[in-house]
Amino acid sequence: MTTLGIVKRNIVRADRAATDRLAALGSATVHEAMGRVGLFKPYMRPIYAGAQVSGTAVTVLLHPGDNWMMHVVAEQIQPGDIVVAAITAECTDGYFGDLLATSFQARGARALIIDAGVRDVKTLKEMNFPVWSKAISSKGTIKATIGSVNIPVVCAGALVNPGDAIVADDDGVVVVPAEWVNKVADDAAAREANEGEKRAKLASGILGLDMYNMRGPLEKAGLKYID
Amino acid sequence: MTTLGIVKRNIVRADRAATDRLAALGSATVHEAMGRVGLFKPYMRPIYAGAQVSGTAVTVLLHPGDNWMMHVVAEQIQPGDIVVAAITAECTDGYFGDLLATSFQARGARALIIDAGVRDVKTLKEMNFPVWSKAISSKGTIKATIGSVNIPVVCAGALVNPGDAIVADDDGVVVVPAEWVNKVADDAAAREANEGEKRAKLASGILGLDMYNMRGPLEKAGLKYID
Amino acid sequence: MTTLGIVKRNIVRADRAATDRLAALGSATVHEAMGRVGLFKPYMRPIYAGAQVSGTAVTVLLHPGDNWMMHVVAEQIQPGDIVVAAITAECTDGYFGDLLATSFQARGARALIIDAGVRDVKTLKEMNFPVWSKAISSKGTIKATIGSVNIPVVCAGALVNPGDAIVADDDGVVVVPAEWVNKVADDAAAREANEGEKRAKLASGILGLDMYNMRGPLEKAGLKYID
Amino acid sequence: MTTLGIVKRNIVRADRAATDRLAALGSATVHEAMGRVGLFKPYMRPIYAGAQVSGTAVTVLLHPGDNWMMHVVAEQIQPGDIVVAAITAECTDGYFGDLLATSFQARGARALIIDAGVRDVKTLKEMNFPVWSKAISSKGTIKATIGSVNIPVVCAGALVNPGDAIVADDDGVVVVPAEWVNKVADDAAAREANEGEKRAKLASGILGLDMYNMRGPLEKAGLKYID
Amino acid sequence: MTTLGIVKRNIVRADRAATDRLAALGSATVHEAMGRVGLFKPYMRPIYAGAQVSGTAVTVLLHPGDNWMMHVVAEQIQPGDIVVAAITAECTDGYFGDLLATSFQARGARALIIDAGVRDVKTLKEMNFPVWSKAISSKGTIKATIGSVNIPVVCAGALVNPGDAIVADDDGVVVVPAEWVNKVADDAAAREANEGEKRAKLASGILGLDMYNMRGPLEKAGLKYID
Amino acid sequence: MTTLGIVKRNIVRADRAATDRLAALGSATVHEAMGRVGLFKPYMRPIYAGAQVSGTAVTVLLHPGDNWMMHVVAEQIQPGDIVVAAITAECTDGYFGDLLATSFQARGARALIIDAGVRDVKTLKEMNFPVWSKAISSKGTIKATIGSVNIPVVCAGALVNPGDAIVADDDGVVVVPAEWVNKVADDAAAREANEGEKRAKLASGILGLDMYNMRGPLEKAGLKYID
Repeated sequence: MTTLGIVKRNIVRADRAATDRLAALGSATVHEAMGRVGLFKPYMRPIYAGAQVSGTAVTVLLHPGDNWMMHVVAEQIQPGDIVVAAITAECTDGYFGDLLATSFQARGARALIIDAGVRDVKTLKEMNFPVWSKAISSKGTIKATIGSVNIPVVCAGALVNPGDAIVADDDGVVVVPAEWVNKVADDAAAREANEGEKRAKLASGILGLDMYNMRGPLEKAGLKYID
Repeated sequence: MTTLGIVKRNIVRADRAATDRLAALGSATVHEAMGRVGLFKPYMRPIYAGAQVSGTAVTVLLHPGDNWMMHVVAEQIQPGDIVVAAITAECTDGYFGDLLATSFQARGARALIIDAGVRDVKTLKEMNFPVWSKAISSKGTIKATIGSVNIPVVCAGALVNPGDAIVADDDGVVVVPAEWVNKVADDAAAREANEGEKRAKLASGILGLDMYNMRGPLEKAGLKYID
Repeated sequence: MTTLGIVKRNIVRADRAATDRLAALGSATVHEAMGRVGLFKPYMRPIYAGAQVSGTAVTVLLHPGDNWMMHVVAEQIQPGDIVVAAITAECTDGYFGDLLATSFQARGARALIIDAGVRDVKTLKEMNFPVWSKAISSKGTIKATIGSVNIPVVCAGALVNPGDAIVADDDGVVVVPAEWVNKVADDAAAREANEGEKRAKLASGILGLDMYNMRGPLEKAGLKYID
Repeated sequence: MTTLGIVKRNIVRADRAATDRLAALGSATVHEAMGRVGLFKPYMRPIYAGAQVSGTAVTVLLHPGDNWMMHVVAEQIQPGDIVVAAITAECTDGYFGDLLATSFQARGARALIIDAGVRDVKTLKEMNFPVWSKAISSKGTIKATIGSVNIPVVCAGALVNPGDAIVADDDGVVVVPAEWVNKVADDAAAREANEGEKRAKLASGILGLDMYNMRGPLEKAGLKYID
Repeated sequence: MTTLGIVKRNIVRADRAATDRLAALGSATVHEAMGRVGLFKPYMRPIYAGAQVSGTAVTVLLHPGDNWMMHVVAEQIQPGDIVVAAITAECTDGYFGDLLATSFQARGARALIIDAGVRDVKTLKEMNFPVWSKAISSKGTIKATIGSVNIPVVCAGALVNPGDAIVADDDGVVVVPAEWVNKVADDAAAREANEGEKRAKLASGILGLDMYNMRGPLEKAGLKYID
Repeated sequence: MTTLGIVKRNIVRADRAATDRLAALGSATVHEAMGRVGLFKPYMRPIYAGAQVSGTAVTVLLHPGDNWMMHVVAEQIQPGDIVVAAITAECTDGYFGDLLATSFQARGARALIIDAGVRDVKTLKEMNFPVWSKAISSKGTIKATIGSVNIPVVCAGALVNPGDAIVADDDGVVVVPAEWVNKVADDAAAREANEGEKRAKLASGILGLDMYNMRGPLEKAGLKYID
């Protein structure tokens, strides 16, 4: 009956090429292109600034204070994956450090997204292995209880199915359902293409009020100017 | 591509009889019987103490500060349902008050679970309409943006599919996937049946250490008694 | 130059009759009638349920951990006033207990709104002296630093000028600028009058979708029904 | 080297008579009498209003998500004790419910103070077994890792040695070192005795400004009255 | 009656020269010179370290999840201004990104202070456009509801009138009322001038205890040295 | 009776050589070597990244909003010490800036750990004086109330006795009781020595599952692989 204690080995990953395009587009543009859904809560922050990645999700469900399943998920990583780790209750312990990062990196993982804490953050930065987490904590974990790998998980408020595309940068983390990834990448790219021209106009001093024709709607909504 | 702007009318609800048994078993026993998954985050609290309900979920996804879809979900309520409301971003506004409660109650709803705020809480208590929420707030909302009804939602960290069973009481809120509800109700009832005898033993002064035969395992784990 | 160390004795209080009408209308209806401004942050909660008051604000600005000015403000209280206490930095100490409440009540104060902690909450309830606060704490305060009385203060995110009307109930706290109080009371009463009929319709099973003619706008906004 | 895995059986408890006097004096007066130290952080709240207890501390140190040691501490309870439970990391799980409460109560425990969550709160109230906790949660715990009993612990920011006196009520929780308890009870009683007269004066309309002779010091501190 | 829907075009800005002096003095010294008022709550943090700015406030009041008025306020920016954005309820959405920053910068804005979230933070840093915010979030906003520009607002607990001076750096954000700015700049500069000599003494090993003649007052306050 | 108002001059410091070895071992390894106790709560964060220090604790207990005792503790600093500052209630004020840092550094202090706020953080970084704190805030403090120096304190949930060893880095802060420091340093070094080989294996693609022989225990615990 339960979904605990299961490791699903074969998952369908989102289209690789489309997934790989998401990193450069960025989490904000992708989120916008999806109709403003799929956001991880903003308490998820990168452990160091500047990383910008996308990849396919392998998921893991952990218990509070117990990182045993991190070793199980390591085996399921394929190059281009991002590990998404959810916890069955709130926890800030440091589930992940430089040894696990070495293993994940050797398997081809691009990043870890974890709704808990990590440690060895200075070394992780030197290794260039990016992590988005809820906390940083020296506290280690035990290995006593089994969870699951590659089941649907809720991580920081977002539903992630194994194989979904993940994009993460300094603005946050967004999940794109695997079946939408081509369309989202196209829509996001179209938005992006659009922005260069807008940026030039705004830089020249043209106002958004005029560029977006907002004056009429604002007046209609009741906006009044006084001196 | 998006899941926004959709109202699904026909959903498969969890078995009524099994769902109805969950209320008396309580959220803690049900959660235990499920293998400790399905919990809404503990910040979800009842607006008044003592309510104990179970029902089938109709879900609604709302935007921050906008309760338009609450009127849309009202029409999809059937007697015995519990409305589960998720928001696309964090918000504490008061989405729900006595007028909507009157409508929900008239449709046969048993409760509201909402990952945001509600208001008119004194009247809601007088009406005997229980709510579990993240906040209480006088602040009203607008009606400008559409969301969805009866899609899978993440509410307070829990994944809820329309038709799933919900159990809520003073200890919190738990979701039981529709396909598990009979087994979970049975397992929870078995646990419950078991507790009367244990309670009597403990009340007589017998220790859990002895009743559960913990002394050996504790010694083996290294526990030492000193004076 | 500073506003610290000042006690303003003569303040213009909001119209008494209009202010007194606000309690029964409630914070949610008043907030709505004002165009959804004037709300104290929802972390401000009553120390016991059921109180519903309105009154004119006398304000006090305190330092963290120092309640000296609470004795100064006591002298400025007139019957029908509500004391609004702001702190220059975040603090959860218990600034106010049964002795100060006895004094405030003797002066005619109807309530205290404080962006910090209070104590003796069991006695305050027995005395029927309602308080809305950020915290409850046994920790007392010192009397070492002066603040001010009856200057504009920011309390829980709301700007309160001395003499403004305050309405507080189980849903939260709202401030109404003194010059608006008659109009707001009228508008709120109009809203309230309107609600009885709506409630009856909704109770009979009529949907908000129909009562508010929402079906057209929702369709226009793109809402789709599926089976 | 470690303090984990130890159960200390013989502890020196604070003087019974003095400890028992603390409940009626209340946490706020006791805290004041101690010079404003010994406070548990104000996030520790009673699971139901109105309980007012004092007792001698037996302490337990638990791991996140693991309540095994709760059964070990049960055996060390003597009539008049209050169990103080600390956790090695932040956790909101429900470590304690009606079965453990039955056992604690049978052993003579007066209350539980726990820096985590509890469940079965409706039943706990019916049993009249008071708890002060950080959270309420349906989530249960496992029994896998040993901690310690009757070692010094930090609970909600307060250092508690086994045998110390604890006082808890609606205002919060305070620890009194065992060697201070007679003096603190006397000092707190003296404060309390003093308050009746003050209350009568304040109720008659006399201001604290005059009763405490504050006008001179306030003027000296620079307070200015304006009209 | 309401203050919503108003754009005030002509505001009196704080003295330019005095305002410009504040940046180098820093938020801590300015705050101290004002008598420790005017502080934005410390949850307001710079999106990148090292920026140190001062300027005159243009204010904007926004609704949760709606950034329409950001385009309206852009037109009211004059060189040397800092935009101060308040929200009518708590919100972490990303109201502001590189396009709006381009527009603000083209108008001469020096910074944005916003009691909500922003996005495109990597680009904002590259553009050298500093922001102090409550959150960083990929989530965009809609354009549906009007707010106001250049009315008094409460931002992160601080009251800001249009035209007030703002100083912001790695330590936080402080508002200086326009009519005080000359005096505050002078007082802060006097404090600053004073510090060089103190620093040299302290660096040489002289203790603050002696430099500030604290030994007597400390002894009088009851401080005791033991071995 | 009280512990307030006391300065203990002679304290026994942890072994210098062993204490100095802790910095390079890091807070995570040291915490692990101690059996996962001694952690400061993870909200304690460095004001700038990269510092890695260890030293002997001199402790100070402060009141909210009052940093008078920081000058008293300065005199008790010996080269190689780290100041650990606790507050009697929650406070985010800026207790410490560049002047005090100059004094602390002149006395030989290596760092400050404070359960409150600090300011002048840009200068502190330039001075290379590391601080771990709960907040950063421009708000200064007064000098009105005495606390104590070199008594046991609870700082961010950790009990620190004067003379204990402290290790702090980007992962957090850990306290090692003085009497354990040699053993902990040895145990931590043994762990560390062990890690190089493990890292090499993991980097070569060997899985933790195999390196730690986890496959059997996982199967025994019920883990199932599906396709």
